[in-house]
Formats: sequence, C-alpha cells, structure tokens
Amino acid sequence: MSNTKVSMEDIVSLCKRRGFVFQASEIYGGLAGFWDYGPLGVELSNKLKAEWWKAIVTDKDNVFGVDGAVIQNPKLWEASGHVAGFTDPLVDCKNCGARHRADHLAGTDSTDLVELTRLLKDKTCPKCGKKDLTKPRTYNMMMKTWVGPVEDESSVAYLRPETAGSIFTNYENVRETMRAKLPFGVAQIGKAFRNEISPRDFIFRVRELEQMEMQYFIKPDIQESTYQEWRDFAWQFLTKNLGIKESNLQWHEHAENERAHYAAAAHDIYFNYPQSFKELWGTHNRTDYDLSSHQKISGKDLRYFDEQTKERLTPYVIESSVGLGRMLLAVLVDAYTEEEIKGEKRVVLKLKPELAPYRFAVSPLLKNKQELVEKAREVYQALKKKHGNVVWDDNGNIGKRYRRQDEIGTPECIVIDFQTLEDDTITVRDRDTTNQKRVKVSDIKES
Amino acid sequence: MSNTKVSMEDIVSLCKRRGFVFQASEIYGGLAGFWDYGPLGVELSNKLKAEWWKAIVTDKDNVFGVDGAVIQNPKLWEASGHVAGFTDPLVDCKNCGARHRADHLAGTDSTDLVELTRLLKDKTCPKCGKKDLTKPRTYNMMMKTWVGPVEDESSVAYLRPETAGSIFTNYENVRETMRAKLPFGVAQIGKAFRNEISPRDFIFRVRELEQMEMQYFIKPDIQESTYQEWRDFAWQFLTKNLGIKESNLQWHEHAENERAHYAAAAHDIYFNYPQSFKELWGTHNRTDYDLSSHQKISGKDLRYFDEQTKERLTPYVIESSVGLGRMLLAVLVDAYTEEEIKGEKRVVLKLKPELAPYRFAVSPLLKNKQELVEKAREVYQALKKKHGNVVWDDNGNIGKRYRRQDEIGTPECIVIDFQTLEDDTITVRDRDTTNQKRVKVSDIKES
Repeated sequence: MSNTKVSMEDIVSLCKRRGFVFQASEIYGGLAGFWDYGPLGVELSNKLKAEWWKAIVTDKDNVFGVDGAVIQNPKLWEASGHVAGFTDPLVDCKNCGARHRADHLAGTDSTDLVELTRLLKDKTCPKCGKKDLTKPRTYNMMMKTWVGPVEDESSVAYLRPETAGSIFTNYENVRETMRAKLPFGVAQIGKAFRNEISPRDFIFRVRELEQMEMQYFIKPDIQESTYQEWRDFAWQFLTKNLGIKESNLQWHEHAENERAHYAAAAHDIYFNYPQSFKELWGTHNRTDYDLSSHQKISGKDLRYFDEQTKERLTPYVIESSVGLGRMLLAVLVDAYTEEEIKGEKRVVLKLKPELAPYRFAVSPLLKNKQELVEKAREVYQALKKKHGNVVWDDNGNIGKRYRRQDEIGTPECIVIDFQTLEDDTITVRDRDTTNQKRVKVSDIKES
Repeated sequence: MSNTKVSMEDIVSLCKRRGFVFQASEIYGGLAGFWDYGPLGVELSNKLKAEWWKAIVTDKDNVFGVDGAVIQNPKLWEASGHVAGFTDPLVDCKNCGARHRADHLAGTDSTDLVELTRLLKDKTCPKCGKKDLTKPRTYNMMMKTWVGPVEDESSVAYLRPETAGSIFTNYENVRETMRAKLPFGVAQIGKAFRNEISPRDFIFRVRELEQMEMQYFIKPDIQESTYQEWRDFAWQFLTKNLGIKESNLQWHEHAENERAHYAAAAHDIYFNYPQSFKELWGTHNRTDYDLSSHQKISGKDLRYFDEQTKERLTPYVIESSVGLGRMLLAVLVDAYTEEEIKGEKRVVLKLKPELAPYRFAVSPLLKNKQELVEKAREVYQALKKKHGNVVWDDNGNIGKRYRRQDEIGTPECIVIDFQTLEDDTITVRDRDTTNQKRVKVSDIKES
C-alpha cells in the first residue's frame, strides 16, 4: 500500500467522472468560479450539512437555526462594514485592459495600497508583458443587483458576502421568540457570493459558495474560554464526525494584518489541500463589533438585560465559520487513495461509512438470470427501505462494479449469486480490505 | 369546536411571535419581498425538504439529485427563453413616477399589450390619482448582476429565475455518470429570484424563493401517462405525506394564455390560502422545448440513443415544481385552528406529528424544585438523544407552556411532577384532545 499526495487534477477528474461536481453551465463553456453539484456531490454535501446541523443545533440546548434571505436591506452591509471594507486591491493594465489582484501580483498578503504601490513599481502585466499598470486601488467584492423595476441608486442591493449578517439582524428576534438567555448561539447554512477577481483551485475559491456559520452570543467575561471551546468543536468535528486525518490539519493563527475588519482574534484550521495547506474552518472573536454597529446604524437597542447585575450590555460574539465546498473538498482529498492491492491498482475513496453517498451497492452476479435479478431486487428493496441510500448496480462485470463503487466510496458491495438461491447467503465485499465474506440474507437486512 | 377561515394577519402574527418567519432586515425597516426563516421555520422547512427529497429521490430508483449554482452562464437563460420571455407588463405614471403591473391594474390575467392598452385607456394612477399613464411595456423579471471586476455588457449575469435551468444543462452529465436510461428524473432544491413588481401576501409572492423541482426525461410516447403519474404524486404528497386536508386543495388547469412559454400542458394544485385559492404545485409538460433549445444554442448533441430502435431522440420533459415557502404557508394555514375547548379559547397548530418543529416538550412542574428539574433533565436528555427535536420548557406556569406548545404544534407535552419522584410516571398531554395520561418513564423513553 502506498499513497503519494493527490493532485487537484485527480480530484477534479474523479468528481466529473463520478458525478460529484460539474462545471456550471458546462455546455456553454462554463462560468469561472461557479460549480454545480452532481448526484453524488449532493448526497455527500447533504450528509455534511445534516451532520453539522445535528452537532451544532440539534444536539445543543441553546443554539437555534435561522435561514436568512440572500438579499437584505443594503443598510445591513453598511453596518457590517462590508460596503466600506470588503475589498481587494486591484491594478489594471493600461495597454491590454487586463485586471489583476495587486497583492497576488506583488506576492504579498498585504492589502496596504502604499506598500503595494511600492512593490508593483517595476512590474509588468502578466498577460501582455507591458510595463503599463495603473496604481493599485480597492475594489468591492460584493455582487450588486437591483430590487424592483427601476435600476438606479435607490434600488441597489447586494448578494450577501457572508451569512453572518442576517444572524445579527435577527439576534433580537431569536432571543425574544426562543426566550434565550446568554450564552446562546444562532446557526445558519446558506449561499453567499463573492466577486473574486481570480477564482481558482476547483471548488476552493469560488464566487458562489455555501457557508455554515454559527454566532455565539456571550457576556464578554467568558470570551477566552468560549473561543477555546469553539476551536475545539471545529477540530473534533473534522476529526471525529468526518474522520479526517489529524496529519492533514493544522492550526493557523491570523496575524493582525490578515484578520477581517471585525475580528479581534482568529484561528483557522488549515487543511492539506492539493495546492497547499489552506484555510478550511475559522473561529473568530468578533467582539461586540457587529451588534454595536447594527445598533448605531439602525437606532435599535440590541443590548441584553442581565437579570443578575440589572445592567444592559452588548453581547460579544464568537463565530464558527466553515464553507461547505471546502469541507467537501477536504473530505474527498482526505479519503482519496491510490493503492495496489492483491496486485491490482485501484482508486478508492476511504470515506467514513456514514458519509458515503451509498451505504451499500447491490448486484446480481449476472444481469440476465431472472432468478438472480429477482432475489437481488428483494435484498435491494429491503436495504433501501431501511437505509435509503442504497444503489443498484448491474452494469458490466463484477470487477468493474467493484472499481466503480470503490471510487465513490461505497463501504460494502453485496452480490447475489447462485449459492444465494440455495442457502440464502450473499457475498459482502469490504471496500477497504477488499475481503469478501458470506452472510445470511436475514443478517444483512438487519444490519 | 369551530373554525372560521384563518386570516393572513393571524398567520403572519403567529410566524413572527413564535419564530417561524421574520421580515428580512427587520431592524432596517425590511425589504419588500424578502423574508428570513426563524428557528421554528427552519426546522419545519428542513422537514418539508427532507420529506420531498426522500419521496422524489431516495425512494425512487431512477431520480437523481443535483444542486446547481444560482448564477450560470447567461446563455443558459437565452436558450431557456427567459431573456426574451420572462416578462411582466408594466406602466409608469408620468406624473408621480410610480410603476404598476399593467395586468393587475387592468384586472385581467392577460399579458397581451394591445389588449392591456385598450383596457388601461381611461385608468388613473392608483398612487397619485392622475390620468397620466404610459403605454404598457414588458419588463424582465430576472435579477441582474455582474461577474468579475468590470461592470459592462460582457459581464452581465442573472440570478436564476427557476432551478430547472441547471437541470437541463446537466442532463447529459447526469445521464452519463449515473448510466441512466429513459425514463429518469433529476431533482433539485434551491433558491431562485424574481424581481416581482408587487411582492405580496406574506411568503406567497416573494422576490427570493426556494424551489423544489424535478424534471422527468421520457420518450414522447408516454407523456400522457407520465403527466398523470406526476399529478398524482403531487396530490398524494400533499395529502398523505404532509397531511393537508383535501378540502383545501383543488385542481386548476392552465388555459393557453396562462401557460409559461415552454409548457404544452399545465395543471396546478391550488391551495386555499387566506387571500384565495392560489397555485401551490405545478405539473407541466415542457415537451422537448428545453433540450431542443439548449442543443440549438450550445451546439451540443443532447439526443438520447435508444438501444431498441437504434435511433436518437430528444427526450420530452414532465416537470413537477413546488415552492418551499408556499408549501410551508399551506401547511401552517391548513394546521392553524382557533377553538374553544373545555371552556377555553386557544390557537393550536394541528401539524402532522412528523412535521412539528418539536416532537416533545419536557417540563418540570416547578422550575425551582431541584429534584423535579433533575428528573426532568434526565427525561429530556433521553428523548433528545432518541428524537433530536425535543424542547425544554420551564417558562411560566404549565397553562402558559401548553398554550405556547399548542401554537407551535408540539404533539405531546411531558410534565415531571412530585408523583414522578414516587412512582416514575409522567404526565403526557395530547395537543389535539388536550387529554392527559400518566405513563411510565421507561415507556416514553422507548416511544
């Protein structure tokens, strides 16, 4: 057994070949930064969402869900700081018109325009090669639209750049309707949009993403311990709930110039993506930045009345934020294995069985033997009724079926053969060991 | 027991008071046509989505899921006919600048500009009262944005007006990766956006909606029977899976001038909404309109090779399409009951128990008796571990708790009292009958 690091090409190819992820509008040449999830991608992402929701909402006594609109009153994004601060530095080439991220071109993480101007002084355009770049300027990444029939300044609205916004605007509604007391959390899964200049690395940096975010509202005095708890939660979730190898994860603390405009502290969990270790899951101390700002701009009192001290305070927020696409990519990369077993090369997705798109594949040994097919259908129906995610696979020979199911991570393949008709036993073949054992039909039905 | 028809105000008020639906950006005065789902609204809508997905994808052998991007290559919407045809007729008031739906103002379903011009000849502006309206003209309801840093014609894109589009563009990818043979279906749940001129009726007519759509690809010779099957599916789902009363549903066949530009036949199920019977779920025969058009505009061959006849054909499509918001509203309206029981007036949501946001509420009789609280926590934890959606409720007296749980449709309330400490029995109170019975703790744990 051996496993060298998987390349992004291998993952993209597997995703396309097996129906995990397709290019959006592929028949029209696609659209950079947008992806569609195929049948297996949807099943896997539904499981990831359900697992996260269960761990962070259902299993907790004091975390509540919301599902806010993508388009909100634009004042929300003034208060959040995104109208002023959600920007990237850009340069244009005066010769060919190409536009580039100034920080990428300068090879720096800094977004300081003075420093970028200095660094880019002698740079040429990567597209045309001419030395004719504008000075760097900031560019807002929120996607813009209009609401209502008139396209003018009064009707401008934005596609949300993060789901957190509608958690803050609903803070008081949730607190009141749920009669919640501090500390409590509000969680949301939903789409967000970012007009990235250079979307790249498959589903890692995209223009349309799905976020899973939770904001935990607290009194300021427990910010240190709560921050640590949610860092632990993220690590536990990735390693225990999703089964990702610890060796593929590492902590990264944001330096001051890396932090978002609202964050007093930020720790990311980085995953070992094909391109490099990159951010997967962020835990942030947003302090009272958001609620204070919303109070100021909306004029609404969002302070919390503390029954013990009889005082009003603006809660602090610890945020836990992860992208569904990045999580799905991490799960696939972590599970992707090329190995030689019993002299044969194969690709196998060693997914945690609970996450596999299909729990079982059921096959008749031969698809043109009526008795085998009938018996196999009976087993298939029984397992499907119980587990839901069971696939019927009678295409090609058994070896081909195993290879296909290995590639999509199906933990067990069940084959109905002539012996089944005699003694009511079936073959169960294990994905990871490739070992086969004979089991009573009645036993597998109860598994 | 009595029940007069529920008003929209009652539903809106319940939704806000109990955390089902809030106005989006409420603290900023909202934004017309956009709504956020609160903690109970999310739980209910998650159940509706899961039930629909199970019935239409998991339980079927030949229906596959996808999850396409909201933003697609704009050529998709040229091919679909939305750039040319997804329009409403509008008039402007030259005096005050107000804009109105011409068909609504004329009191007609027609969108024919000649007829509308005739009907509106003597109309005055509903806003300022002046008779100074422009001639009606068409207005495209797709919401527009730009992708990439440059805001010009070359970067215009649209927020999808329906999820169907990315099902058609993925048809060939799904067929190939799933090795699917006709007939087969592709299903999707996701957001769509429509720049409605006059959003209204709470979450009924909105600018941002969530759709649940399934396109079933067939050979043309079975279009009649397949159309009937999917009409039956919709009716069964609403009445059996969701428990909606048949008396609140009726069929409505689209007349030719009501049908969307792609539909050869369309039957809606109308629900008895507070404002009137209105469309909830559509079944449409889209013929080969979509795949033919995508073939033409993309230049890709999307025909299906029929192994029996050895011929290539463009599949027909039977579509089943329902809005999540409209379904949630129908479920709430259908369940909403005001009644007098044992001399007391109450509001109760008679939801199917499987759909209720919480399956059980657990309460200690008194919240300041340590023994009762401890015992109640034990029962709560056990039920939560088994069912997930269980709520702890120790606010106010028992009567208030029952009224609150009735309003959110919790089927059973469990109370731990002093007798529990003696004989390990608890009170279980039924939402619909309000009857109480004593049950062994061990029995309820296994329920």
